[in-house]
Amino acid sequence: MTQSTSTPAPHLLLGSCDYPEHVSQDRWAAYAQQQKELGLTFVRIAEFAWSRMEPRPGEYDWSWLDTAIDAYHAAGMRVVLCTPTATPPAWLIRAHPEILPVDAQGRVREFGARRHYDFASPVYREHSQRITRAMAERYGGHPAVAGWQTDNEFGCHNTSRSYGGASAAAFPGWLERRYGTLDALNAAWGNVFWSMEYTAWEQIKPPNLTVAEPNPSHVLDFYRFASDMIAGFQAEQVAILRELSPGRFVTHNFMIFEMGFDHYDVARGLDFVTWDNYPLGMLEFFAPPGSGEDVKTHFARTGHPDLIAFNHDLYRGLLGGKNALGRDGQGTPNGPWVMEQQCGQVNWAPFNPLPADGAVQLWTAQAWAHGADVVSYFRWRAATMAQEVMHSGLLRHDETPDRGFAEVAGLDITQFPVGGVPAKVAVLHDYDSLWLYDEQKHSASLSYWTQTLAYYSALRALGVDVDVIHADADLSGYAVVVAPAITLVPQQRAAHWTAAVKGGARLVCGPRTAFRTPGGETWADGQFGPLSELVGARLLQYDSLRPTLSQHVTGDGGTFEAHAWAESYRVKGAETLYTYSGGPLDGQSAVIRHGNVTVIGAHSSELIGTVLAGVLAEADVATTPLPGGVRLSRRAGRTLLQNWNPERVEWNGQMLEPVSFTVLEDAVLENTHA
Amino acid sequence: MTQSTSTPAPHLLLGSCDYPEHVSQDRWAAYAQQQKELGLTFVRIAEFAWSRMEPRPGEYDWSWLDTAIDAYHAAGMRVVLCTPTATPPAWLIRAHPEILPVDAQGRVREFGARRHYDFASPVYREHSQRITRAMAERYGGHPAVAGWQTDNEFGCHNTSRSYGGASAAAFPGWLERRYGTLDALNAAWGNVFWSMEYTAWEQIKPPNLTVAEPNPSHVLDFYRFASDMIAGFQAEQVAILRELSPGRFVTHNFMIFEMGFDHYDVARGLDFVTWDNYPLGMLEFFAPPGSGEDVKTHFARTGHPDLIAFNHDLYRGLLGGKNALGRDGQGTPNGPWVMEQQCGQVNWAPFNPLPADGAVQLWTAQAWAHGADVVSYFRWRAATMAQEVMHSGLLRHDETPDRGFAEVAGLDITQFPVGGVPAKVAVLHDYDSLWLYDEQKHSASLSYWTQTLAYYSALRALGVDVDVIHADADLSGYAVVVAPAITLVPQQRAAHWTAAVKGGARLVCGPRTAFRTPGGETWADGQFGPLSELVGARLLQYDSLRPTLSQHVTGDGGTFEAHAWAESYRVKGAETLYTYSGGPLDGQSAVIRHGNVTVIGAHSSELIGTVLAGVLAEADVATTPLPGGVRLSRRAGRTLLQNWNPERVEWNGQMLEPVSFTVLEDAVLENTHA
Amino acid sequence: MTQSTSTPAPHLLLGSCDYPEHVSQDRWAAYAQQQKELGLTFVRIAEFAWSRMEPRPGEYDWSWLDTAIDAYHAAGMRVVLCTPTATPPAWLIRAHPEILPVDAQGRVREFGARRHYDFASPVYREHSQRITRAMAERYGGHPAVAGWQTDNEFGCHNTSRSYGGASAAAFPGWLERRYGTLDALNAAWGNVFWSMEYTAWEQIKPPNLTVAEPNPSHVLDFYRFASDMIAGFQAEQVAILRELSPGRFVTHNFMIFEMGFDHYDVARGLDFVTWDNYPLGMLEFFAPPGSGEDVKTHFARTGHPDLIAFNHDLYRGLLGGKNALGRDGQGTPNGPWVMEQQCGQVNWAPFNPLPADGAVQLWTAQAWAHGADVVSYFRWRAATMAQEVMHSGLLRHDETPDRGFAEVAGLDITQFPVGGVPAKVAVLHDYDSLWLYDEQKHSASLSYWTQTLAYYSALRALGVDVDVIHADADLSGYAVVVAPAITLVPQQRAAHWTAAVKGGARLVCGPRTAFRTPGGETWADGQFGPLSELVGARLLQYDSLRPTLSQHVTGDGGTFEAHAWAESYRVKGAETLYTYSGGPLDGQSAVIRHGNVTVIGAHSSELIGTVLAGVLAEADVATTPLPGGVRLSRRAGRTLLQNWNPERVEWNGQMLEPVSFTVLEDAVLENTHA
Repeated sequence: MTQSTSTPAPHLLLGSCDYPEHVSQDRWAAYAQQQKELGLTFVRIAEFAWSRMEPRPGEYDWSWLDTAIDAYHAAGMRVVLCTPTATPPAWLIRAHPEILPVDAQGRVREFGARRHYDFASPVYREHSQRITRAMAERYGGHPAVAGWQTDNEFGCHNTSRSYGGASAAAFPGWLERRYGTLDALNAAWGNVFWSMEYTAWEQIKPPNLTVAEPNPSHVLDFYRFASDMIAGFQAEQVAILRELSPGRFVTHNFMIFEMGFDHYDVARGLDFVTWDNYPLGMLEFFAPPGSGEDVKTHFARTGHPDLIAFNHDLYRGLLGGKNALGRDGQGTPNGPWVMEQQCGQVNWAPFNPLPADGAVQLWTAQAWAHGADVVSYFRWRAATMAQEVMHSGLLRHDETPDRGFAEVAGLDITQFPVGGVPAKVAVLHDYDSLWLYDEQKHSASLSYWTQTLAYYSALRALGVDVDVIHADADLSGYAVVVAPAITLVPQQRAAHWTAAVKGGARLVCGPRTAFRTPGGETWADGQFGPLSELVGARLLQYDSLRPTLSQHVTGDGGTFEAHAWAESYRVKGAETLYTYSGGPLDGQSAVIRHGNVTVIGAHSSELIGTVLAGVLAEADVATTPLPGGVRLSRRAGRTLLQNWNPERVEWNGQMLEPVSFTVLEDAVLENTHA
Repeated sequence: MTQSTSTPAPHLLLGSCDYPEHVSQDRWAAYAQQQKELGLTFVRIAEFAWSRMEPRPGEYDWSWLDTAIDAYHAAGMRVVLCTPTATPPAWLIRAHPEILPVDAQGRVREFGARRHYDFASPVYREHSQRITRAMAERYGGHPAVAGWQTDNEFGCHNTSRSYGGASAAAFPGWLERRYGTLDALNAAWGNVFWSMEYTAWEQIKPPNLTVAEPNPSHVLDFYRFASDMIAGFQAEQVAILRELSPGRFVTHNFMIFEMGFDHYDVARGLDFVTWDNYPLGMLEFFAPPGSGEDVKTHFARTGHPDLIAFNHDLYRGLLGGKNALGRDGQGTPNGPWVMEQQCGQVNWAPFNPLPADGAVQLWTAQAWAHGADVVSYFRWRAATMAQEVMHSGLLRHDETPDRGFAEVAGLDITQFPVGGVPAKVAVLHDYDSLWLYDEQKHSASLSYWTQTLAYYSALRALGVDVDVIHADADLSGYAVVVAPAITLVPQQRAAHWTAAVKGGARLVCGPRTAFRTPGGETWADGQFGPLSELVGARLLQYDSLRPTLSQHVTGDGGTFEAHAWAESYRVKGAETLYTYSGGPLDGQSAVIRHGNVTVIGAHSSELIGTVLAGVLAEADVATTPLPGGVRLSRRAGRTLLQNWNPERVEWNGQMLEPVSFTVLEDAVLENTHA
Repeated sequence: MTQSTSTPAPHLLLGSCDYPEHVSQDRWAAYAQQQKELGLTFVRIAEFAWSRMEPRPGEYDWSWLDTAIDAYHAAGMRVVLCTPTATPPAWLIRAHPEILPVDAQGRVREFGARRHYDFASPVYREHSQRITRAMAERYGGHPAVAGWQTDNEFGCHNTSRSYGGASAAAFPGWLERRYGTLDALNAAWGNVFWSMEYTAWEQIKPPNLTVAEPNPSHVLDFYRFASDMIAGFQAEQVAILRELSPGRFVTHNFMIFEMGFDHYDVARGLDFVTWDNYPLGMLEFFAPPGSGEDVKTHFARTGHPDLIAFNHDLYRGLLGGKNALGRDGQGTPNGPWVMEQQCGQVNWAPFNPLPADGAVQLWTAQAWAHGADVVSYFRWRAATMAQEVMHSGLLRHDETPDRGFAEVAGLDITQFPVGGVPAKVAVLHDYDSLWLYDEQKHSASLSYWTQTLAYYSALRALGVDVDVIHADADLSGYAVVVAPAITLVPQQRAAHWTAAVKGGARLVCGPRTAFRTPGGETWADGQFGPLSELVGARLLQYDSLRPTLSQHVTGDGGTFEAHAWAESYRVKGAETLYTYSGGPLDGQSAVIRHGNVTVIGAHSSELIGTVLAGVLAEADVATTPLPGGVRLSRRAGRTLLQNWNPERVEWNGQMLEPVSFTVLEDAVLENTHA
């Protein structure tokens, strides 16, 4: 089950996150050896170890880290080393308190946990580069070091944005570079609205603590600014690592459904991206489409398959989803990784149940099938101190193997070859749209993620493989392109989509598509702005429905109940597929079609599934309607059949065991994309 | 359907709120013309346009506003001009940050939205007068200008009170003027209670951030102080407008259920009052009596008739409800107006459904029947920028007429003559009582508004017209006076009510009546303090009921279940009409009567309705029991029969269409009050 | 019914809390006389009267207090005098604003209510001692003064901890005294975890406003520090009172379920402890085991018997539960007191219902049966001013006797002899465990109190008398020792328990027992750390169950459903009594036994009751299974049979009236402990 480090790995590899500084030195060699014996290839270390690397200003202590890395090396493990900038030490913060970020309530966010820094701080940027350089100089060429992770989980604990201090100071300059003149900014933001026009750049502050809600354009640009600060912060580290650690990869571990920055911008310049997969905690915080307590209970010990899969597909698409063999001569997989994979209970949700038997194996298999080349478990041994003592590891506090360990030991990773995901359907995603949608939701029942996931989940329930890609990404090769909630559609994006449709792609759009301008206003000629001609219609009404109200929608596929949102259209060339009946929208168009473009104005999971099934059929994309909790995922010519239910399910003539998977050599669907 | 501007208008007139500064200048003439053609008479403008009137300190730019007003004038529209003080521009705020208010959490409330000023700020007062003077000098005599609105929606976004800065600085002086000596203040507040006695005026701060709840007397006086600051702020503007714009009216647009200041004090000095009517958002935030999700769902697309009507009746009564013909020689109606009337979806509630078909007409008709002389729709065209893009207008973003436009176009306003509302029943209201009640509610289930509305709604369900008037207002001519929640009854008020009862009026009081002194203490001889003799009883017990507990009440009218509140009395001359049975109040008096005075101690909508029906019958006030959602309102000799239900209702032998109204020439009730 | 003051009182005595400064002086003599006639012995006064004792800095005014005390003395009442430090006056605070505490959000907590001081403030400590000395000099030898209460309700309104100012300044020094070196502190806290290591004492701040959750060890020590500040603050007052008021007792009135300080530490040095018993408010805020709206409704007018009894037993045990005759030659009872007993509705819960008929008598009887020597009602007359006007007293606002007065008048206190509570069962309690448990609950469904009360309530439902004592207290004489949630078990405690078990005691532990080290880490060899040998097992898994999930547990006593928490064990010598079935714990040990030690890993009230019943039977502790709301309590050879239900209950052949009690001369259980 172990891997040779000298030849390219043709299949999924495994790893874990280890913290040698948390245990006594006499355990290091044994841990490394035990990891190797378990079949792990990679070990990620040191992302929170700054106070040990540099105990006092300028006094570096590498001895312990030398010893630790040598121990892994001796055991044949490959090391992922991290810049420790998520946790600047006390001596640095107390010497330079201006590094600390400020929350939206105007309070300085204090030292004593992690991520206590403002990305825009010039002082911190200097120290970030200094420690990165020191590490890279020391370990950049170490034979055990396979690559680098920058920092840790950008944005965690709501840290993407700082509403004072360095960020507040830098924001006006960023705006001046973006707009050139205050007239341009005032016009772009519509500042005339409430007499909000500025006459000097330094009058502009972050959009917090305003008496009423701030201007959404103000918010949008502040979010863009903050995202740029993160990208710039990381780029400085990447440049140093490129210089001093040639031949090693550089990546970052992103988070589930993080909304604080533009992941496409921040990923740019990395070799591949990784993300941290915590299915059970995720379920408590991010409701899947149509979920309630029953869904949370049903999937309490596995997580919801589509919530997890969406993140896999999202991160696979951040850099275009490269799945080639390794780049460093050692076969380091450079498709996406799961850098941290839950392998027992987490500690941060309101309730933290144990995973079901088989869940760790199922998560690992799913990760592979959705493109992961490496799955690395968090963490090797459960911490015995501080904030995360209630979080599990592969080893328990007492160093006995925990349940996850046994599941990893029982896994045959040779059944998981690396290779492409044959998606013929793309779901479009865009952080500007997310920010603007959620800033003015108009309904407490819907959000950008909720709406997007309704479309994604409908596709997955049809057994369809999906690429989640940027709204401006290359669309060639996709039979169907779905834009669930791309509310911000500039001229250029409209042209891009129009070209794709003319090239043969079918486009399906959700409500609010192309409602807004790049500046955050609405199109003065109304939705769909520059997309109007392609869609062959204009917006007539939108209706935000109380949870206790619904709206009938009728068409060839039957009658459906729309919830939360219903918008109608004035067709100008398009045909009406579904019509509202009853209520203020009675008789108006709910779903329209103009050639290869379909717009679904009513929010109904069933309607969405029905319309998508029709479009997929026309596009010759094979579909397989699946029971709840059963999912198909394809990669490298194999199909992963999954049962996420806690009960047996009979499907397609076979009995699927609870929380289990099967790898089918004869792919159910053979077609491969691109 | 259009009005002649040179003769007094005998019926309801219409208007809209327009923002020429939000659109390009080439639209202005067309908009004005279109408004005129729709049948609108008035257009309100410029309340947020300071940054365009004075782009830089002291640099006025009137050219655009000249052009805009001239365009309206050319089309025959009459302009309501606003002082723009709700939105001081950035250059003013950044030069004088001490203008900014401070919230109850001690945070400065920032520039970036609106209403970012402290009413007590001497600096801001100076600028408020300066810009008012500048506008009035420019436009005070313009023939198109019919009148003025001061500022915009005082108190919106919780801005009535500032807990620091200028207000904190002014509060001690206000107290010194009120009390003269600290001994008097300490005694009035009962500061001995927790050793809270002051020995210097400057020791006194606003009542926020105290370790436990502050002294309610401290709170009460801070609220009175803040209210005075608003009245004073406005008075300065009014004085300038009177001087420089003779013959024009001055008004302000108040808000639904706003609690931050004494509306009677602030209205004093205006020609008439106007208010902003948003029935659908109101329903989500202000629960009608006995409401739950079912009520919110039933009236989701119309709003609840009694919530709206209460505000109409409240604002009609602020200045005594004058309904004479116009004062300016041009027939400007000087009864109350609806300055902003929702005419499509709003954008500020958790859910923002479309109004039902017919709702805009129904709201307009109801406004008339409850005394409005003008209804002005918000807004002409939906904004394409900034905070309110999701709010509708008469025109859509793309300038096509929205649904509300069509309803306005279809309205025959000649059926709505101006004239008196023939109310023989008065409901008493008082902001001191509201503040004190809500400061010490003793039950999470009740508030001053909830209790007051229970009585109001019971009257409306009996088909009775109601004046909502100040607790100290002239009571002559009323057959029945209802004091639902007047908890603060000074000697003088008690004498006033006693005189009214002796004059023949019947008085009905709710629980907690006359519980408190003017200083906010309780009467040392207990409830009903100075009203005890009139009531013929004293308070025995009050019981705050959990939502899961109720209390039986039995009497001639049957048995009822009291919820939330039950108080009992020791009669001293009064007779007992209803008695509690079971529980700690078993056998005690629940409803008592002493001559023409009735007190209802138990909170039960059904009991209230039953007791009121009996009193009304005795007083020869005709009642018409109505089904839910059906309402009658009378004005100027006509009766407006309304069906607010989304379904047809058969009533009195006729079929009422959903969301509809009928104006009956033969008034169901002929009697006219005063 | 009145007591002779010169001979020891053989039974429960009564008192009330009075505020002469709140009423005019002409009422004082009458009130005192009326109190005496009602059968009261004690009157507590002056805890909030600083501004009257010292109206201006250094200007004392004792005249009014002289008069008041003399009035009580003349009537034969005995006075409990209070240091007034809960309410420093305005002149002191404005002169020394650094006295004010800082909340966890970083805001200064303002003057205007009470408890507005930081226990660590050197300035305030000086003034606290000065006013204490002045009072003690004046009244220390007054014949009417029976004793002293320090301050009032330490910790009320979340005031145990200040997160800035004086406390923040003192915290590093406290840590340095505790740890000696930063290396020791960094190691004890596990600060390496997130690079949180300190290199200078002054770098350490209170654990608030951190970006993510702070280190639980940091929190634990900050809580210990804050607790020490309270103990030190009080000790300064006690020393002065001992010096200047010889022969008088010194006590403090503690609060229900207060968690802000270590009550054992703070009680040390007092003669006895008292607490403030508000059963109805308590019920709204502290849910009894398994409670929901139905339980809150059922006991809405009595409170839950076990919630109240737990506090009685807790406070009886703070100083070891001395129940001897008086110490001052006047028979002052020196067992625990109830210093404030609700005798009508309170004013501070979301709903504040009236007590049931009989509730005041039942509370008084229960207090006696659980060890109270005095019950003192809050308050004599309902306040007519300020924050608490909605709170009842024995007299109403209008001075008529309220319902509670009548109940007190009807009480025969000679049936309540003082004497020992014959508990053979001890429930262990420890504030360090409470703090650590609640800091990392891992489940929103459980807390330290909830878990502890589940065990306590199970014992009470079996009719068993319980001592609640410190986890390190003397265990001799107890047949059964229950450790429901003692998660922090140092070596020394483990040895102490082991000795008790070897001495014959049976030990029953709940989940999470001995999970943590004194520093707040987990034992590196896992739960049960130093207790492992005694328990004969180690922790295998813990499972935090969503409210919608449960876990089957099966054994000889039947099958049960565990909720919220389930942990399993790897036995090493212990036998398995109950086993999990189904789910991830299938087949694992749920309840284990090793000789006289039993561990219950699953949270289920029924399972706990069943296991405890078995252990009690083996230990020859008589049990009497009781219906819900029926309770037995024994003291001084008598048994108090109580029915807390609002309905009649037939039990043991007799009919128990609603909300009633019976004192049985022939004790159901004769055995007396120690």
